[in-house]
Amino acid sequence: MNNKPSLITVLSPRLLDLCDITNSIVVIIDVFRATSTIITALYNGAVKVVPVESVQECIETGKKLNAITAGERDGKVIKGLQHGNSPAEYYREFIEGKTLVLTTTNGTRLLHMALNRGAAEIIIGSFPNLRAVCDHLLASRKNVILACSAWKDRFNLEDTLFAGAVIHQVQQHFTIHCDSSLMAENMHTLHKNDLFQFIRKTTHWHRLASYGLENDLEYCVTENIANILPVYKNGALVTG
Amino acid sequence: MNNKPSLITVLSPRLLDLCDITNSIVVIIDVFRATSTIITALYNGAVKVVPVESVQECIETGKKLNAITAGERDGKVIKGLQHGNSPAEYYREFIEGKTLVLTTTNGTRLLHMALNRGAAEIIIGSFPNLRAVCDHLLASRKNVILACSAWKDRFNLEDTLFAGAVIHQVQQHFTIHCDSSLMAENMHTLHKNDLFQFIRKTTHWHRLASYGLENDLEYCVTENIANILPVYKNGALVTG
Repeated sequence: MNNKPSLITVLSPRLLDLCDITNSIVVIIDVFRATSTIITALYNGAVKVVPVESVQECIETGKKLNAITAGERDGKVIKGLQHGNSPAEYYREFIEGKTLVLTTTNGTRLLHMALNRGAAEIIIGSFPNLRAVCDHLLASRKNVILACSAWKDRFNLEDTLFAGAVIHQVQQHFTIHCDSSLMAENMHTLHKNDLFQFIRKTTHWHRLASYGLENDLEYCVTENIANILPVYKNGALVTG
Repeated sequence: MNNKPSLITVLSPRLLDLCDITNSIVVIIDVFRATSTIITALYNGAVKVVPVESVQECIETGKKLNAITAGERDGKVIKGLQHGNSPAEYYREFIEGKTLVLTTTNGTRLLHMALNRGAAEIIIGSFPNLRAVCDHLLASRKNVILACSAWKDRFNLEDTLFAGAVIHQVQQHFTIHCDSSLMAENMHTLHKNDLFQFIRKTTHWHRLASYGLENDLEYCVTENIANILPVYKNGALVTG
């Protein structure tokens, strides 16, 4: 029993330094919408996705790699970049064989924090690749940090619900002594059968739906429709 | 409808600065056990409770005020202080007419943070005074911050469940657009009928029950058994 690896849920980037993440797989979660978009681009054949923190870095890296540049603020493509942060933009005919350089508010920053704090491995999760994430965690038998990107450091429900969905599937194989994980699993169980209704009550839904992004958001909470595993290697996310 | 004051839940002291708390009533919540103990001491006739941050300050203030000094670390009375952080110690025959100077790990620190960030009013909440807290919030018609003390900045369920119990009772009278509050209310509704069982799954229960404090913990989650309202005035908590 005591040989099981541990699993911890982190509800905001502000709380990441409270955990020792070395020797752990860190799952970066940003359901609305960075991690859903990364998963979709790779699922549809992108060679790699390069996450960068600033717009300037996005433009420069895009030039260097002859890549597509993408990023949004407040639901609009950032000036100087070519595309947005919607998974719907990255259909196969457009993205296959290409490189995407992406900057986002929350997910990208958390990924770099995890990198700087010495994560053993960084992978990307959201509802579209739930099964792939769980399969990998079960096969790896390493300690796990489920890291929610939140929204500007504020707790959010969509990331928490995804953490809960992972926990629900893998909990028998991990030692879990953390109230965040217990809460996330409870919230998942409570809403797994009304997720599409409940998610409409969250603050992030209201924020993004006001930009006309309802279809995007429904896609982001649909399980297992892009079941690949993005893994961070040599500065880029590639299919693991 | 738009004239309703706002209500926000803060899940960890680390997240307090993300909110503007000026013009707000801040409810300090530290169910296990600081706020439960403060409520109990005042309910049983203490003149006031002085919350201080350090052991040294506790000793010095105790001498100056000819007061009882109290504080625990890891379930034991701190060397140099007279009493612990258990509500059971502060029965009427002992505490009536006296002043208590108290230092704790989480709740005291959060109270001083709220003070420094300009809270309009600071009150103290836990299950024993649930009704008194709700009555005050409903009568005041001001913006409210439900501030969970957490455990060394980590999210905890007992404080969240109390926040949820408050929200459940007052939500019709506030504008609530925050995922933390939605989650807290959901968790309260899910567990209000099995609270004494569910609370045994939390990390803090495990930590404190291992020191033989089970009776204490059950008291701390019992609703309305010490229905007074501690209010912070001139450096001390007094019955409001």
